[in-house]
Amino acid sequence: VRIAVVGAGAWGTAFSRLLIERGHEVTLVSRDAAQAEAIRATGRNPRYLPGVDLSGLHTVTADGPPEADLHVIAVPSSGFAATLASLPGDSPVLSLTKGLDPASGERLSTLAQRPFAVLSGPNFAAEIAAGLPAAAVVASADGDLAELLQEELSSVVLRVYVNPDLVGVELCAAAKNVIALAAGGVDGLGLGDNAKAALVTRGLAEMARLGTACGASPETFSGLAGLGDLIGTCWHPEGRNRRAGELIARGRTGEQARAEIGTVEGLTTAPVLRNLAHRLGIELPITEGICSILDGADLSALVAGLMTRRPTEE
Amino acid sequence: VRIAVVGAGAWGTAFSRLLIERGHEVTLVSRDAAQAEAIRATGRNPRYLPGVDLSGLHTVTADGPPEADLHVIAVPSSGFAATLASLPGDSPVLSLTKGLDPASGERLSTLAQRPFAVLSGPNFAAEIAAGLPAAAVVASADGDLAELLQEELSSVVLRVYVNPDLVGVELCAAAKNVIALAAGGVDGLGLGDNAKAALVTRGLAEMARLGTACGASPETFSGLAGLGDLIGTCWHPEGRNRRAGELIARGRTGEQARAEIGTVEGLTTAPVLRNLAHRLGIELPITEGICSILDGADLSALVAGLMTRRPTEE
Repeated sequence: VRIAVVGAGAWGTAFSRLLIERGHEVTLVSRDAAQAEAIRATGRNPRYLPGVDLSGLHTVTADGPPEADLHVIAVPSSGFAATLASLPGDSPVLSLTKGLDPASGERLSTLAQRPFAVLSGPNFAAEIAAGLPAAAVVASADGDLAELLQEELSSVVLRVYVNPDLVGVELCAAAKNVIALAAGGVDGLGLGDNAKAALVTRGLAEMARLGTACGASPETFSGLAGLGDLIGTCWHPEGRNRRAGELIARGRTGEQARAEIGTVEGLTTAPVLRNLAHRLGIELPITEGICSILDGADLSALVAGLMTRRPTEE
Repeated sequence: VRIAVVGAGAWGTAFSRLLIERGHEVTLVSRDAAQAEAIRATGRNPRYLPGVDLSGLHTVTADGPPEADLHVIAVPSSGFAATLASLPGDSPVLSLTKGLDPASGERLSTLAQRPFAVLSGPNFAAEIAAGLPAAAVVASADGDLAELLQEELSSVVLRVYVNPDLVGVELCAAAKNVIALAAGGVDGLGLGDNAKAALVTRGLAEMARLGTACGASPETFSGLAGLGDLIGTCWHPEGRNRRAGELIARGRTGEQARAEIGTVEGLTTAPVLRNLAHRLGIELPITEGICSILDGADLSALVAGLMTRRPTEE
C-alpha cells in the first residue's frame, strides 16, 4: 500500500519504520526542507530518534503530501486542520494526533471530508522504534476501514485492536494529556506515588465523565486508548506532558516548559477541553485546576485545597 | 479510641503513626519479643521504617492482642486467620491485609465473627510515614462502622472515602498483587512501558471480570481500591510484588524472590485466585500465566504467545 506519513516528529518517524517493516511503500513528508534532505542523504532523522533506520523509505519530501492510498497524519493538533486541508485526493486518513481542534474545540475527525480513522494507545515512539512490543486501537466510523487498517498495521511489534467507539478514542487521546500534566505536577511537587495514583484514578473518572456526556462508550475509557494510554503517559519518565507538568510544578511557565520540551499537547488541549466542558455543563476539576495554574494560580494552594476537602463516599 | 495494631511490619508501623497523630491510644502488637523490646526502648521500629517516631505509642507488646475498642490487623494473609482467632472480646476489626484466606480461598471478611471493615487503596507505607498525602477507601457490610472509621482515620495525610462494596474492595486488594507480579515481569524482561501499560489495562479488566462474577460493583474496580492501588503497585519502584515479578523474570524462583523481599502477597494469592476462578468458571489469563510460571513454565514463550495471538476487537 502507498502510504504518506505527514509529520517527521518522533511518532511519525517511528510509525514510518513500522510501515516499512510491514512492506508498505512509505513517503515521509516533513515541513522542513533541510530535515527532508538530511533524511534522504543519511537514511536517518537527525532530529528525532536518530537510531531508526529510514533507508527503506520510498521517498522523503518537504513539498507537501503526495497522492497516496492512505495518508497518516502525525502532526501536533495545532497544525492538524491545515495538514488535513493540504491532502490531495480523497483517500482515507489515519490520524496519530492526540488532541482537539483548537479553533473549533471539536474532535479532529469532525474536520475530515474523507474516510477517517484514528490510532491510539500506550505507544511511546522510542519504545516502538526499539522494537519493543506495544498494543493500540484503531477507531473509525467506517468499520471496514478500521478492519483494513488493523490488517495492514498489525505486526510483531504493534498489536492493533479495533474499537468501534471513535468518539471515545478521540476524547481519551485528548484528555489524557491534560491529566498527565497534573500527574507530572504531583511528581514535581514530590508528593509520591500514592498521591499520583489517586490523582490518576480521579483523572480517568473525569475523562469518562466527559466521554459519557459526549456519547462515548464507558468501556473505551477502561481500555487501551483510555486507561492504557493514560497510565503510560503518567508514569513514563520521557512522557512530554508529564515532564511539562513537572517543570511547571517547579516554577516554570507553560511557555517555558514548551520551549524546553517542544510540542506539549496537554497545554494546547487543556483550555479547549475546559471550554467544551462548560458548553456541555459538566465538571472537570483536574482540567479546571490545570487551566487555573496555566492562568497563574498557585499550585500548592490548589493541592492543599484538594487534600483538605471533607472526604465523602468514593 | 483504644486501638490495637496487630503486626509490626512496614504498614503496621506507618499506620500506628497515623493513629497516634490522630490522637488515638495505640498499642502495637509484634510477634517478636526482641522487636517489641527494641521499639519500647528506642521509640523506633528497627526493622521497618526506622525513621518513624513511635514514641507516642501507648504500649508495645509481644504477648498477643489486648482488649481494645478497635483491632487493626496488618499481618500477611497467610497469618490472617490465626491472628483473627487470637483477638479478645468482640470489638470491630479493621483489616489492612491484602489477600485471600489461603486455606479456604475465601475473602478474609468471611472468617470474621465480629464487625469487620477493610482499608485499601494506593498506600505505600514509606510515603505515608514520610507524611506524603494519600487516599484510601474503607469498606464494610456495616455502613455505620465504615463511617465511624472514616471519621476516626481521616487526617491531612490520609483522606478516607467510604465504599459500600466490601466484596469488590477485598477482591481488588487480593488480585492487584498478582497483576503487579506480571507487571514486574514486564519490567524484568525489559519490555518497556507500552507493554506494561497494555498488560495493566488487561489486568484491570481481569480483576473486574472476577469481581462481576462475585457480585462486586464495577465502579470499585475503577476506583481507589482497584485502579488506584493497581497502578501504584505496578509502577512504584519499591512495590514488593512488582519487584518479585522482576526478579522472577530475571530467573529467580518464587521462593528465591520471597527470600530476598520478604512477604510477597501475590505469590500466596495467585494459586488461591486461580482455584477461585476455576470454581467460578471464569478465565483469568494473567493469573493463569503467573501460576504456570511459578509452576516452572517458560516466561519468554508465554510473552511471545501473547504477542502473536491474532488481534481482534478490543
